[in-house]
Amino acid sequence: MTSAEVDDGGADEAPRSVLGRALAVLAAFTDASPELALADIVTLTGLPPATAHRIVAELVAWGALERVGRGRYRIGLRLWRIGALAPTARTLREAALAPMQDLAAVTGHVVHLVVLDGYRALFVERLAGREDHTVRSRVGRDMPLHASGPGKVLLAHSPAAFVEEILGRGLPRLAPGTITDPATLRAALADIRRTGHCLSHEEMTAGVSSVAAPVTAADGRVVAALAVVVPATDPLPPYVPAVQVAAATASRRLGVRPQDRA
Amino acid sequence: MTSAEVDDGGADEAPRSVLGRALAVLAAFTDASPELALADIVTLTGLPPATAHRIVAELVAWGALERVGRGRYRIGLRLWRIGALAPTARTLREAALAPMQDLAAVTGHVVHLVVLDGYRALFVERLAGREDHTVRSRVGRDMPLHASGPGKVLLAHSPAAFVEEILGRGLPRLAPGTITDPATLRAALADIRRTGHCLSHEEMTAGVSSVAAPVTAADGRVVAALAVVVPATDPLPPYVPAVQVAAATASRRLGVRPQDRA
Repeated sequence: MTSAEVDDGGADEAPRSVLGRALAVLAAFTDASPELALADIVTLTGLPPATAHRIVAELVAWGALERVGRGRYRIGLRLWRIGALAPTARTLREAALAPMQDLAAVTGHVVHLVVLDGYRALFVERLAGREDHTVRSRVGRDMPLHASGPGKVLLAHSPAAFVEEILGRGLPRLAPGTITDPATLRAALADIRRTGHCLSHEEMTAGVSSVAAPVTAADGRVVAALAVVVPATDPLPPYVPAVQVAAATASRRLGVRPQDRA
Repeated sequence: MTSAEVDDGGADEAPRSVLGRALAVLAAFTDASPELALADIVTLTGLPPATAHRIVAELVAWGALERVGRGRYRIGLRLWRIGALAPTARTLREAALAPMQDLAAVTGHVVHLVVLDGYRALFVERLAGREDHTVRSRVGRDMPLHASGPGKVLLAHSPAAFVEEILGRGLPRLAPGTITDPATLRAALADIRRTGHCLSHEEMTAGVSSVAAPVTAADGRVVAALAVVVPATDPLPPYVPAVQVAAATASRRLGVRPQDRA
């Protein structure tokens, strides 16, 4: 450890490397708090105010953060541009977008593209339905794996040890249809593997159901789930073929160079 | 400057703060080179190999980078998530997406959402048309301001001093229709302000034209341009009302809280 890394003191939880501290500042920005004052950043990171101020100034100068109003900060356009280079955004999303548009246009419902992120399911794309107010989903937000159609699709294609880990962490009820019993969830996952799709009845939100199917990379790995979100009063089976076609199209496009895509 | 900041020596161009060096590593990843080996990072940043290696390891551990194959790196999902919190992605894109979907569905053509980024126009969203191979545009890529419909819309609503700066930097020809004469471009910008839209004939790519209109924030500032990309053989005026309606809808939605949007 160098003098530069200890001269600020700081809370016990604060990261000790200069880079670790800067990354902690970035990580303070979340979906729940996309705009922060310097005091918030100090509280959330445990960094000494002088350190936080210096790091924020350097991040603003570079474009990773931008100042909004007086003394408030948001993530900057330059960081967005670099984040957009991630394979999930650049490769997966780009392959899936056209079939997602078609699925949204044909069904008139919200369409989601979801990937695994640690123990959670992460929305990487969301297209609007004709009635856009039914679902509060948002790109970059996450949800529990056990309590949604796309989450269960990702879980169904995860290693058994990972599934047991998720079961061990508990299956909290979020809505009337959430599967909270491990044996029932195991059976549901087997069904998803057998049928190639997932019907989800009010598992995450009351009044909202979904139909999901896996998106597969050229090597056969399931890399995402594609889902259409429908009112719980709709019969779900009629949506299955459309979702499967869109997911299959996304899978096929994933294996093809962008300039050669149909 | 502390010992931590000088102990590696390093090339003249290399940034001297620890954080500056880490940001330089991230900035080495671009649309043209989204995947880099450690040796590439060393070359692009001018950092000493040991420093680059240490920074890359810390960025991988945190999730800003991820390792692909052996010794190659890409931007990681965690950085994508944080980048997605930028106002451009979170607020603007979310407001514009539904009208963009409608415009793509009605016209069958590629639809772009474009913002100003320094001296360039930056694609922040791209929806597919029915024939998806006509345009090679990509989210996160940029283009010159003077040589496209959305670029000229952004320029038309920029301060006069900024326009003169762009003119002073030169107007290179990119395609048969590129405006390369300053007086002609000034007149075109005045037309855009007067009519509220822009017709662009093969300015960036031969065979491709576009119709663009401004997206306006609640305070009246033009914050983006929305454009439909059409074959150069199509007459452009019939597209104008649809593009203007979509841009107006995006503008109105920008001023409304997400949960209250129609």
